[in-house]
Amino acid sequence: MRLSRYFLPTLKEAPSDAQIVSHQLMLRAGMIKQEAAGIYAWLPLGLRVLRKVENIVREEQTRAGAVELLMPTLQLADLWRESGRYDAYGPEMLRITDRHERELLYGPTNEEMVTDIFRGYVKSYKSLPLNLFHIQWKFRDERRPRFGVMRGREFLMKDAYSFDIDEASARIAYKRMFAAYLNTFSRLGLKAVPMRADTGPIGGDLSHEFIVLADTGESEVFCDRKLVEMAPPGHDLSVEQLEGVFNERTALYAATEEMHDAAQFEATTAESDRLSARGIEVGHIFYFGTKYSEPMKAKVAGPDGKDTEVHMGSYGVGVSRLLGAIIEASHDDSGIIWPDSVAPFDVSVISLRASDEAVSVACEEAVKRLEAAGKDVLYDDTDERPGGKFATADLIGVPWQLVIGPKGLADGVVELKRRATGEKQTLSLDAAVELLTK
Amino acid sequence: MRLSRYFLPTLKEAPSDAQIVSHQLMLRAGMIKQEAAGIYAWLPLGLRVLRKVENIVREEQTRAGAVELLMPTLQLADLWRESGRYDAYGPEMLRITDRHERELLYGPTNEEMVTDIFRGYVKSYKSLPLNLFHIQWKFRDERRPRFGVMRGREFLMKDAYSFDIDEASARIAYKRMFAAYLNTFSRLGLKAVPMRADTGPIGGDLSHEFIVLADTGESEVFCDRKLVEMAPPGHDLSVEQLEGVFNERTALYAATEEMHDAAQFEATTAESDRLSARGIEVGHIFYFGTKYSEPMKAKVAGPDGKDTEVHMGSYGVGVSRLLGAIIEASHDDSGIIWPDSVAPFDVSVISLRASDEAVSVACEEAVKRLEAAGKDVLYDDTDERPGGKFATADLIGVPWQLVIGPKGLADGVVELKRRATGEKQTLSLDAAVELLTK
Repeated sequence: MRLSRYFLPTLKEAPSDAQIVSHQLMLRAGMIKQEAAGIYAWLPLGLRVLRKVENIVREEQTRAGAVELLMPTLQLADLWRESGRYDAYGPEMLRITDRHERELLYGPTNEEMVTDIFRGYVKSYKSLPLNLFHIQWKFRDERRPRFGVMRGREFLMKDAYSFDIDEASARIAYKRMFAAYLNTFSRLGLKAVPMRADTGPIGGDLSHEFIVLADTGESEVFCDRKLVEMAPPGHDLSVEQLEGVFNERTALYAATEEMHDAAQFEATTAESDRLSARGIEVGHIFYFGTKYSEPMKAKVAGPDGKDTEVHMGSYGVGVSRLLGAIIEASHDDSGIIWPDSVAPFDVSVISLRASDEAVSVACEEAVKRLEAAGKDVLYDDTDERPGGKFATADLIGVPWQLVIGPKGLADGVVELKRRATGEKQTLSLDAAVELLTK
Repeated sequence: MRLSRYFLPTLKEAPSDAQIVSHQLMLRAGMIKQEAAGIYAWLPLGLRVLRKVENIVREEQTRAGAVELLMPTLQLADLWRESGRYDAYGPEMLRITDRHERELLYGPTNEEMVTDIFRGYVKSYKSLPLNLFHIQWKFRDERRPRFGVMRGREFLMKDAYSFDIDEASARIAYKRMFAAYLNTFSRLGLKAVPMRADTGPIGGDLSHEFIVLADTGESEVFCDRKLVEMAPPGHDLSVEQLEGVFNERTALYAATEEMHDAAQFEATTAESDRLSARGIEVGHIFYFGTKYSEPMKAKVAGPDGKDTEVHMGSYGVGVSRLLGAIIEASHDDSGIIWPDSVAPFDVSVISLRASDEAVSVACEEAVKRLEAAGKDVLYDDTDERPGGKFATADLIGVPWQLVIGPKGLADGVVELKRRATGEKQTLSLDAAVELLTK
């Protein structure tokens, strides 16, 4: 992509109402633009990252056996009356009346709708286990939206819903998602710690939040330091392996502020392992048994022929919020430092003199070869000064910068900079391309 | 994908309120489920097709130089007051009030918002031409939603917006989209004819609808038969080539019912070329000059340093509606016949006896090899009777069916059926896999 034909409106200064660094950097890097309180347009650079994050979440859900569908953003109020949540949900639910005076709402979550889909089609235990997920825009009418996409009102969420014949199977489904989440956050370059959590308005008796540790986190968290460094569990795990992954982690202390028990923390965790920090919630999983299947009559015929209510769980990931969390965890004074897996582009090719024919030829050659190898390339072909180009490249945080100028070319070399470390090397264009595509 | 682990709730009978064949088939094939009038959940099979259609639309927009962003579904009413459309839009606009009594609306289209984004960042003619597009859910509160996804209320639309320094450049942008649309619909397996159209509530003086001819079309259309068979124009066209593509087509008569002039049709078109048919609108493009940039003050500095209002166009494709149009144009009594480019799976592998070890081994081998070659495979590993499996495969319309059973295997052969023609061939598994992956 040539920068001269792209739409990357970077800002020198972040608006003063952006309080946290991820919000400031997303605005300055031209990733988002606020359209109303807590409602954002995703500008091209932001959308590229959003899609990469979304695809990693999707791939890990699919590998864990969940099947993707897509529920609409608007729902009938009557569906929520069946579960009893329509009145209970409070002012965070955006309630809407259409031209025929029918009551709708902008879905904040989808337990009711997915239960309705399930009961409409699934009649036998033979169709279980089943896990359905979607990645869709949700709306929660936060009283005080803030921190950019971290606490927006219209936000992109992945929510999965598991259906099982009994509690034992449902707990396995829960642990499968628990492991999938560890894999997901690891691929996103995050260290996310599962913490026993309150179930809140979703209900149920078993719940974990996945928390990214960051100084700017919204809440205080407490955990055993060893949890932070554990490797992700990997794929295609047997039930025994899933139990192992779950038990190994839940044996160590980890709790959000609401669930914290200082005495237990001290009793179970060596002082040197006790970590108290601030955290950002990026995922939340729930097992809630028959809380929805019972009032909504989602039953299947069991092996004995008798109808039985299905046991359910739900599993959320804040996809749009993850961009904020990743930036909070990975930035420096010059801007964002994207993990390779979600970077909007793999390489910034920077022309130091757009008017120089030889430089342009070399840049275009580099772009062509990198793109042929499947790399996403942003080619800064504008006539801005080098200093401005370097600042933009650092700000938007593309992992590699390939800098091509007339002086270097005369000596047969280009410069390659790794954004994360600032490390620079001078080498031939061939060697640079080879390094970037190997 | 193993069918036993998938979620494909097919129906023997379509609900009686489904009046047109695409609606009936989408319900029967387990592609969609109605959640409210004109609001649908996309079940896994439907979502796969929706994503394939969306990706073709995206690729063709990108190749034509448009840059993707993503605007939110909800918008501020005040933005629409600036253009004067808030009051003018009428009851099709879903108006919403949030907890702080702020007036929002669910976007039916995005001229105002994209103009606001443009004016917020772009200050000079040097940044032009610019074309920004997004693919997002929209809502139009149709008085009488019907025909499934063909006239839904919550629907997925691609809308692009071009910005140019003057009318001449804007007309080139218009023709570039005109050509991109011809390429897009051709890749989707559709014969779509551009027809001079009324501009309606979008405004402007130049507009074309792209119409798919189908007996069940919503409106009558009239055109020169030669337009139906023209090859798509292809990519990377010069301005002269774009003019040629546009002139060649617009020289021939084509008009929707509202724009039809019978006398002109007869005067310009030989009787044998006069085609009157029913059609489905799948795209609509507009040039409307400064209709939005003037009231919303979207200006850039021109080469002479003076501020000038940008000339704009907008370009819509009904992405979700396209699935209905494709089915209307491509089905038979047994079900859907997907064009290869948008089929939910490339091949259905059908086991004639799931309990037979040799059959299962052969099926799994076929699936593995097809998937390794990048094919999307649905493997019917269920214990349903062969007749039911064939009926499902025909209904969901996957282009190829690879049928593996014990008798054939004993003779070293499998059966390969092409869904579109019904043509069957008996051949070795190796030969079948080779044919499908070549």
